[in-house]
Amino acid sequence: MSSIKVIKIGGNVIGNPEKLEKFLDDFATLPSPKVLIHGGGKEATELAKKLGVEVKMHQGRRITNKPMLDVAVMVYGGLINKQLCASLQKRGVNALGLSGADADCVRAVKRESKEIDWGYVGDVIPGGVDGSFIQNLLENGITPVFCALTHDGNGNLLNTNADTMATEIASSLSAGNIVDLVFCFEKKGVLLNSSDEDSVIEKITPEYFEKLKESEIVSEGMIPKIENAIKALEGGVSKVLIKSAENLLNTIQTTVEK
Amino acid sequence: MSSIKVIKIGGNVIGNPEKLEKFLDDFATLPSPKVLIHGGGKEATELAKKLGVEVKMHQGRRITNKPMLDVAVMVYGGLINKQLCASLQKRGVNALGLSGADADCVRAVKRESKEIDWGYVGDVIPGGVDGSFIQNLLENGITPVFCALTHDGNGNLLNTNADTMATEIASSLSAGNIVDLVFCFEKKGVLLNSSDEDSVIEKITPEYFEKLKESEIVSEGMIPKIENAIKALEGGVSKVLIKSAENLLNTIQTTVEK
Repeated sequence: MSSIKVIKIGGNVIGNPEKLEKFLDDFATLPSPKVLIHGGGKEATELAKKLGVEVKMHQGRRITNKPMLDVAVMVYGGLINKQLCASLQKRGVNALGLSGADADCVRAVKRESKEIDWGYVGDVIPGGVDGSFIQNLLENGITPVFCALTHDGNGNLLNTNADTMATEIASSLSAGNIVDLVFCFEKKGVLLNSSDEDSVIEKITPEYFEKLKESEIVSEGMIPKIENAIKALEGGVSKVLIKSAENLLNTIQTTVEK
Repeated sequence: MSSIKVIKIGGNVIGNPEKLEKFLDDFATLPSPKVLIHGGGKEATELAKKLGVEVKMHQGRRITNKPMLDVAVMVYGGLINKQLCASLQKRGVNALGLSGADADCVRAVKRESKEIDWGYVGDVIPGGVDGSFIQNLLENGITPVFCALTHDGNGNLLNTNADTMATEIASSLSAGNIVDLVFCFEKKGVLLNSSDEDSVIEKITPEYFEKLKESEIVSEGMIPKIENAIKALEGGVSKVLIKSAENLLNTIQTTVEK
């Protein structure tokens, strides 16, 4: 039984060279085993614009037609993932970049919806994460670095939400391990008062989350993040920390636990 | 001791969907262990043009400034590498995409030249390939799929010639294994008469190569390819086959051996 940290970072840190350097320094000092999962939506949007690929969103989530999928694969699977690995190698972290297609480690299914055609968007299938492959890498001193791309086993790459990817990977590693999942984002934690950056809620249980929703203290963007956190707890994750990428090494954070 | 095939494909097959499907079908039927290495220069040039990144060449080799490196990382490390992995997974091949930065498996040094600034171009350092890591993947039933990107251990990704990368990887696997290196390109083999596509030279030894050069039967583009083949033999590779990606499963080819 090992203690594993699964850490997800998003576009706000990836797109900021100074913040990213600081984060990677901090990440490198964390003891292994550890897993990094990254988004990169802002960078993908920038490249799409340069290439004249139309960016379509629905309810804050990206619609991924074939040209947009290619952009996502280039940016997430190529530019960001490989540079993160090289930057971590520099810091002595034996990073290995992965998409879900690599070694068949995250299998998904194309999202079907009557309401809207999401395009090449994938939802991880039950049992779709090969936790034993990831575990084997960790036991060999390797730090997996995942981009949020999956595949359907039929030759299609699929764009998957990075928070969901992190949740599924953390859950799959929970069998036989104590797993902490860390969602890094631009704020210090879940805020009790959205106009006070320091009003971080220390602890959220599933029950308290219901109350926070009822009282509309947690807003649109936070709801799926906390829902993912609760899903991770249900999947066996020990606790979920929601915090700023700038605060990786300190305890300013919201802890989601049962 | 295993018999390992290391196969390199270039832009002519990667850029042609029909040829690529056929090649991947053939590659999937080859017994494991096997390794795939891919180029993709034509695709990188296309993306560079779309993004307004100037493509500079010197003696047939690409000069890689930072914008061009980003293009190479997006196209080689992202678009081509991840799609190849998904396409091989569909065919039951447990492919894992790798750059040299991943798991620190191919270390290089930035090319220094008084004559010209090559930019982010890397030459693999002696002992720079971690053959034991690749061997470990092969023993676990995984087929490594390499793009021709390396890193310098100091956070920089480097663009490396795909033939050279294949040569270095094949050589590193030769300790304790029988390794065949296959260079796939657009012709059926090395031609005795460049205007006769069927005049494939069956066998080239290092001595015969010297004669072919003297008599100018092998031309500019073929010389570095055969030099790489001879370097691979010196590195312990059993034999090198130069052939068309369309002929992977038959014996129409030039064999380079001692």
